Amino acid sequence: MSWNKEIPANPVVAVAGATGAVGQEFLRVLHDLAFPAAEVRALASARSAGKKLAFEGCGLVPAGDLVVQEMTPAAFEGVDIALFACGASVSKEMREAVVGAGAVMIDNSSAFRMDPDVPLVVPEVNPGDAFAHAGVIANPNCSTIQMMVAIKPLYDLARITRVVVSTYQAASGAGAPAMDELYNQSRDFLEGRALTVEHFKHQIAFNCIPQIDVFLEDGSTKEEWKMVVEAKKIMGDESLAVAPTCVRVPVLRCHAESINVEFASEVSVADARAALAAAPGIVIMDDPASAEYPMPGLLEGTDATYVGRLRKDPSVPHGLAFWVVADQIRKGAALNATQIALLLLP
Amino acid sequence: MSWNKEIPANPVVAVAGATGAVGQEFLRVLHDLAFPAAEVRALASARSAGKKLAFEGCGLVPAGDLVVQEMTPAAFEGVDIALFACGASVSKEMREAVVGAGAVMIDNSSAFRMDPDVPLVVPEVNPGDAFAHAGVIANPNCSTIQMMVAIKPLYDLARITRVVVSTYQAASGAGAPAMDELYNQSRDFLEGRALTVEHFKHQIAFNCIPQIDVFLEDGSTKEEWKMVVEAKKIMGDESLAVAPTCVRVPVLRCHAESINVEFASEVSVADARAALAAAPGIVIMDDPASAEYPMPGLLEGTDATYVGRLRKDPSVPHGLAFWVVADQIRKGAALNATQIALLLLP
Repeated sequence: MSWNKEIPANPVVAVAGATGAVGQEFLRVLHDLAFPAAEVRALASARSAGKKLAFEGCGLVPAGDLVVQEMTPAAFEGVDIALFACGASVSKEMREAVVGAGAVMIDNSSAFRMDPDVPLVVPEVNPGDAFAHAGVIANPNCSTIQMMVAIKPLYDLARITRVVVSTYQAASGAGAPAMDELYNQSRDFLEGRALTVEHFKHQIAFNCIPQIDVFLEDGSTKEEWKMVVEAKKIMGDESLAVAPTCVRVPVLRCHAESINVEFASEVSVADARAALAAAPGIVIMDDPASAEYPMPGLLEGTDATYVGRLRKDPSVPHGLAFWVVADQIRKGAALNATQIALLLLP
Repeated sequence: MSWNKEIPANPVVAVAGATGAVGQEFLRVLHDLAFPAAEVRALASARSAGKKLAFEGCGLVPAGDLVVQEMTPAAFEGVDIALFACGASVSKEMREAVVGAGAVMIDNSSAFRMDPDVPLVVPEVNPGDAFAHAGVIANPNCSTIQMMVAIKPLYDLARITRVVVSTYQAASGAGAPAMDELYNQSRDFLEGRALTVEHFKHQIAFNCIPQIDVFLEDGSTKEEWKMVVEAKKIMGDESLAVAPTCVRVPVLRCHAESINVEFASEVSVADARAALAAAPGIVIMDDPASAEYPMPGLLEGTDATYVGRLRKDPSVPHGLAFWVVADQIRKGAALNATQIALLLLP
C-alpha cells in the first residue's frame, strides 16, 4: 500500500483520547512545538464530550478552551493528522474511519507496532521510515523510545550485538489514575492506613513491582517483549539481541534504564561520549565528581533523553554501561508522536 | 596466621554499634536464632553509653534491657565473638583490641573484606572459608550477599562466566536516619513542602539515585566495585565477570536485583528452578499466572533470599534471567553475620 495524500502546511489535527494523561500532554506539546495546526480537535469517549480542556494554542489556533467532541468515525472527517492516545482496542476500532477520512493516524498504542506495513518511528533514530506509511505510523513503547535514542549514536560507532536493560518505570506509564494511586498509597502508608490497590497488580508505594503488562508463555512480560521486537524493527537489525527486565518503581513520570551494551568491535568511552553529545535529542548529565547524573524525580516535564553513568563494562570484550532517563509522558509518548507528525509536514 | 582458640558452646557475644539499625537487628537475630550466648554485651560510642536496649534474650541470657557500654578496647575482655555493626574506620581502630582479647571479630563493614587473610563468608555459599580466619571474618556487602545466595546453586549446575546485575536498593543500606529521611521527604513531597536532603546525595522520595557510595576513577561506584570483587572472592573464581549498576530506590529495607547470568554450558529453566528450590536460604516466589514474584515492599523482616521471574535469556547462548529480593538489614547484614557466628560454635 502506498500513501499519496499530501499533508497541508497547516493541517487539521485531532487528538484522540484528549482527556487522558497522554492526551492532555499532546495539547501541551502541540503548543510547545508551535505545531502549525489549522485546527485542533479534542476527541474522547461520549462520557467526556462537552468537557472543556485548556489549550494554549498553536499554529492558526488561538489559546482558549477546546470543547471535547465524542470520538465517532465521523469526527475524523477533514482531519489530516490524528494523534491517538487511546488503548489498543480503540485504535483498532477507529483505524478504518481515520484512514478512510484521509488522515494519517499516529498511534501511541501497541495495536499496530509490529504490523509490517506500519512504520515504528523514533524521529532521532529512523525518521526516514515514517514516509513509508500506509495511513498509520506507530509510536513505540515508552521504554523502547528512550533506549533507542541513547543506543542509536553508539550503534553508528560500531554494531551493537546485545543489550541488557533493566528498567525503573514510573507510575505514569499506567495512566493518570495510576499516578494518583501512587500518591494516595504513599499518603496512606505514611499515616498507617490500609492501602487501596486498583491500577497496579500490587502496592506500588515504597515498593518495586517486577511486572509491567501481562505475562507471556516464556516467562517474560509483554512490556519486555515489546522492547525486544520494537528495538529490532526500529534499528532494522533482526540480529540485535535485547534482554530486558521491566520493573515499576514508585516514581511519578520519568522512566530510568540501566543499560549494558556489547559491540562487535571496540568503542572507547570517549568516542561514545562524543557521539552521544553530538546526537539529536540527547543531553549528557555525567559528572561523577559533582554527583551529577540523570534522575527520574528531577527531570519531570523535560523533552530530552538524558544519559549518564557512562563507563566501560569490562566484563565483556567490547562493552559499555550507562543510565538513561526520559519523561515517560513526553518523550515516551506525546512528544515522540508529535515529532513524527512534524516529519510529515511539507 | 592461624587461629587456635576454641569458641565455647556458650560464648560471650559483643554487639559493637548496638544502637544503629544493624546493631539493633543483631539483638533481634540473636534472639530469633536462639543463639546460645552466655552473655550479650551491647557496645556503642560514649554518647550512647548508659542507654537501655530492649532484648528478648537468647541462650543463657534472659529477656530484659541491655545497658549500653562504651566501646573501648577493654570492653572486649572476655568476649568470644564480636559482631561489628560500625563504620569501617571504627572496625579498623578496634581490630587489634578485639583480636588481642581473643575474640573473633565478625565485621559488617567494608574494612577487611578484601584482605587476603580475612575470609568473606556467605554461609549458604562458602561456609568452609569461615574456618580459615585469623581473628577476623568479614560479612560481605548487602547487595553481594543476596546475589551470591541466588547464584551459588546455579553455578553448581554449570560455571557462570558473567553476571549483569542492576540493583534496586533500599534506604536502610544508608542507616536508620536515611530511612527516616525517605519517610520525611515523602511526607513533605505530598504536602508540597520543601524537602531536606541530608543522608543521600539527592532527594530519594519519588526518585531513583544511580549512585551508592563514592565514585572510583573508572566511572563505577565503590558499591559496584564491591559486588565485582566480593563475588570473585566468595566464589573462589577470579574469572567470574560481574557488571553491576547500583541504584537507590525509594523503598525502606529490602534490596531487589535484576540479574542476567551467562553459563559456560546449557542450563534449563527447569534444572535451575530445581536447584534453587533445593538450595539453603532460598524461597522461590515465581508464579506468573497469579502475579506472584518477590517484592521489596512486602518482604520486610524476612530471612530468606527470594527468587522469582526465572526465565531463559535467549540473547546469549546459555543465559538465564531472574529477580532477587532480600531484607537488607537481616540477610544483607545482621542475619548473615550471626549465621557466620553459628558456624564457629563447637
